Amino acid sequence: MNDCIFCKIIAGEIPSRKKYEDDEIVIFEDIEPKAKIHLLCVPKDHFAYLTELDERRSALLGKTFSKIASFAPSFGLEKGYRLIVNQGDDAGQTVKHLHIHMMGGQELPF
Amino acid sequence: MNDCIFCKIIAGEIPSRKKYEDDEIVIFEDIEPKAKIHLLCVPKDHFAYLTELDERRSALLGKTFSKIASFAPSFGLEKGYRLIVNQGDDAGQTVKHLHIHMMGGQELPF
Repeated sequence: MNDCIFCKIIAGEIPSRKKYEDDEIVIFEDIEPKAKIHLLCVPKDHFAYLTELDERRSALLGKTFSKIASFAPSFGLEKGYRLIVNQGDDAGQTVKHLHIHMMGGQELPF
Repeated sequence: MNDCIFCKIIAGEIPSRKKYEDDEIVIFEDIEPKAKIHLLCVPKDHFAYLTELDERRSALLGKTFSKIASFAPSFGLEKGYRLIVNQGDDAGQTVKHLHIHMMGGQELPF
């Protein structure tokens, strides 16, 4: 956990452009944006994989998607957005702390 | 709802290559795969947007991610996978019934 860059961002030890924060999640700008708007939504609870979801984390994740939907328009994503969760090597999951990419601000090719 | 292609697949009125089904979700192959493995995980409950999540749907969604993680290896996604939820026009959400793309079976560019 000590080496987790997202835990350090959550703790304020590494600076980030935070857009939203509450007790459960933080949303900040991706430092290597792949779209006009590219945010990361990160649960404060440190775990890497969806296989680690227990009942509590599962409920929190559902709630997180609900929050994302509520806040998206205020982040400039009112015309739509793509949410991405990368899991493991084939997906290129770089940070081993579960996170949801929020991308938009433009038409996204698929 | 009558015109929803995913509701018709769920009802068995339109054929699909189903990989998994239970009372809450169905998982089938995308007919226009964008990766070596490209499945769609669809909640049976018809709604289009994450803004429509209430407490019940939110809990179901969290549980759905947990199921996806459990089943992924049996679908050939044991080396990792990408989950995508497209919302609205900018994301190119074609079917207005919430669904989660499950992609993998290869290294995915990001």
